[in-house]
Amino acid sequence: MLQGKVLVAQGGGPTAVINQSMVGVALEARRFAGVTRVYGARHGVRGIVDEDFVDLSQETPESLEQVAATPCAALGSTRDKPDLDYCRNIFAVLKAHEIGTFFYIGGNDSSDTARIVSEEAKKNRYPLTCIHVPKTIDNDLTVNDHTPGFGSAARFVASAFAGISLDNEALRGVYVGVVMGRHAGFLTAAAALARRYANDGPHLVYVPERTFDMESFLADVKVVNDRLGRCVIAVSEGIHDASGEAIVTKLSADVERDAHGNVQLSGTGALADQLTGAIKDKLGIKRVRGDTFGYLQRSFLGCVSDTDQREAREVGEKAIQYAHFGNGDGTVTIHRCGDYAVEYRFTDLGEVAGKTKVMDDTMIAASGNDVTDAFLAYARPLIGGGMPQASRLRAAPVQKILRA
Amino acid sequence: MLQGKVLVAQGGGPTAVINQSMVGVALEARRFAGVTRVYGARHGVRGIVDEDFVDLSQETPESLEQVAATPCAALGSTRDKPDLDYCRNIFAVLKAHEIGTFFYIGGNDSSDTARIVSEEAKKNRYPLTCIHVPKTIDNDLTVNDHTPGFGSAARFVASAFAGISLDNEALRGVYVGVVMGRHAGFLTAAAALARRYANDGPHLVYVPERTFDMESFLADVKVVNDRLGRCVIAVSEGIHDASGEAIVTKLSADVERDAHGNVQLSGTGALADQLTGAIKDKLGIKRVRGDTFGYLQRSFLGCVSDTDQREAREVGEKAIQYAHFGNGDGTVTIHRCGDYAVEYRFTDLGEVAGKTKVMDDTMIAASGNDVTDAFLAYARPLIGGGMPQASRLRAAPVQKILRA
Repeated sequence: MLQGKVLVAQGGGPTAVINQSMVGVALEARRFAGVTRVYGARHGVRGIVDEDFVDLSQETPESLEQVAATPCAALGSTRDKPDLDYCRNIFAVLKAHEIGTFFYIGGNDSSDTARIVSEEAKKNRYPLTCIHVPKTIDNDLTVNDHTPGFGSAARFVASAFAGISLDNEALRGVYVGVVMGRHAGFLTAAAALARRYANDGPHLVYVPERTFDMESFLADVKVVNDRLGRCVIAVSEGIHDASGEAIVTKLSADVERDAHGNVQLSGTGALADQLTGAIKDKLGIKRVRGDTFGYLQRSFLGCVSDTDQREAREVGEKAIQYAHFGNGDGTVTIHRCGDYAVEYRFTDLGEVAGKTKVMDDTMIAASGNDVTDAFLAYARPLIGGGMPQASRLRAAPVQKILRA
Repeated sequence: MLQGKVLVAQGGGPTAVINQSMVGVALEARRFAGVTRVYGARHGVRGIVDEDFVDLSQETPESLEQVAATPCAALGSTRDKPDLDYCRNIFAVLKAHEIGTFFYIGGNDSSDTARIVSEEAKKNRYPLTCIHVPKTIDNDLTVNDHTPGFGSAARFVASAFAGISLDNEALRGVYVGVVMGRHAGFLTAAAALARRYANDGPHLVYVPERTFDMESFLADVKVVNDRLGRCVIAVSEGIHDASGEAIVTKLSADVERDAHGNVQLSGTGALADQLTGAIKDKLGIKRVRGDTFGYLQRSFLGCVSDTDQREAREVGEKAIQYAHFGNGDGTVTIHRCGDYAVEYRFTDLGEVAGKTKVMDDTMIAASGNDVTDAFLAYARPLIGGGMPQASRLRAAPVQKILRA
């Protein structure tokens, strides 16, 4: 039974809908009479050890609803990965504040943090229920059909490539757009949802599930450019060579790593510049442009999937219900049960924590440079309703006179 | 009186609403009984010399309305700047097709093209009416209060920085966002429209109307970062040193120029990487990220200002009316006549062609690293209605126990 004080925190990269989950936890918790306080930790586990809590019980429902509709992490986030000492500090604080239930909204790193905190609580015989609430634009959590945050980010990527494809048709050339995704190519693959007419871009899609070979890449670009006089390419920031080394680090001297040991891939235009440079140099194409979508794809105000919003809200609400009805520690997982409908289940933390799901082989074209219809059918419902449609002229040609 | 065949073309960089102007021309022209055909030239003046026309008379109104709501240039665009030989080819084609009125939708380069074509027509005694229809996300056309395309691009930039500011508050560090704009800082300045609460980003805004000095820049960043523990910076791609040399070209060996002699600034992450590198190296700040907004800001599907859409449509419609009522050659200009209301006038091509308007001194803070309220009052109506609001928690603090 849910009672006493509950604590919610947000970890990892912000998304367009992570606040829906936080508000889902906060508002649903307040419906249970035994709950005395709902605290929020500022900046994830860092806010716990710093005793940096805000009292969400004092937020008005109206204010919480406005925050729910706001992208990024309203409580603040962190990349900290707690070790044993860190966890001991967490327990000391949770005990001092008499917190009995901890909800951590985040991705695979955050679910691993929840798992470690849960284990340390057991070792210390501290009565703590730890529940992980899924979130990641990378869509790479195991067990889950997909994850909250992905649909809205995918909508951004699809909307961006729809515009880029039109732009590239208006002023021809080669365009490389670099999309987030370290190990999983789902978000990059979402670029393909931009296509409507024949020959719409992206014409080539490269995901980290396949080895990236510069020679093959250049050959692919040449084929498309020779045929259409232009080429739009979606590339994951996580593309790597056969040894697994990220392409972006091969030519970069200055590699930055976070507390989880991950190489910093975003926040630099290096990969796009490398690829556009290679296309200019090796293929002799003059107008070659590259953009790195960077932080816009996870935080842009006003690009959100309604499906994603609803599900993000519900995983927060379900987390409270699972806690109340005594399921112990675990993570809320999303399962597709129709076309399109979902149901939620309560899953052991160990099945999700620290693991990474990648795109199924059926979603990637045999050529390795595109997605399949199976991926499109999978991803289309996730980006939500009301996507604007890009329309072309029918363009009846006029008979030439001088050059007839 | 408008009669016979009319031709419309689109030049320069695509925008979210340039198709509104094209459709405004096409649909309004079709209302005049004397008009026998409305042609569109593919890829601007290039399509004229190539006799690459489509017959817009055969487009359904429904199709044209769908195209009007689609970003980028549906007819295709060009960066060509016609010289004398080029213009002779244009005349030969226009004469052969018996085209009497030419509408060119574009920015200052395109208005200059319209002016040259107009002059060459007069020299060749060819009875041609040339009308320029304004368009540019840079907002840098003289005489005009503002230009179609700017409002939607400004909405994109404001939406992006609103999200970035939230993201930066959730995971602290320094962020540099590079925005388009060669000589005029209007679009970069629009980042300031993202602010709602105190300490919202962008905290620093650098426009090309002021000389950029790396030492002052780093000092500014240090002040903000020391105060807030984070810093969001909006920088124009066109920032330059005291000699006028673009910062991006100072460290780049490989400079690309277009037919107008403009150095290529977009389509590369070089400037953002230079600035983030300097902040890391000189200020010793660890988490420094940079994004170059690139082509997304002018083509993103679904980010449009309703005000901008309506005005883009009307400048196309007014162009037809000015042509019909015998005003000769000229350009349609937009003038603010209320808060907020606009009127249109017909202006000599020479007053706009090839000239560049920059931000007024009253719009830039004395510090040179921010905008003023005068800019906000000027720009706010242009980004249109229905902007989502980013909301914060009220965040009642919880009393610390262990660290009390």
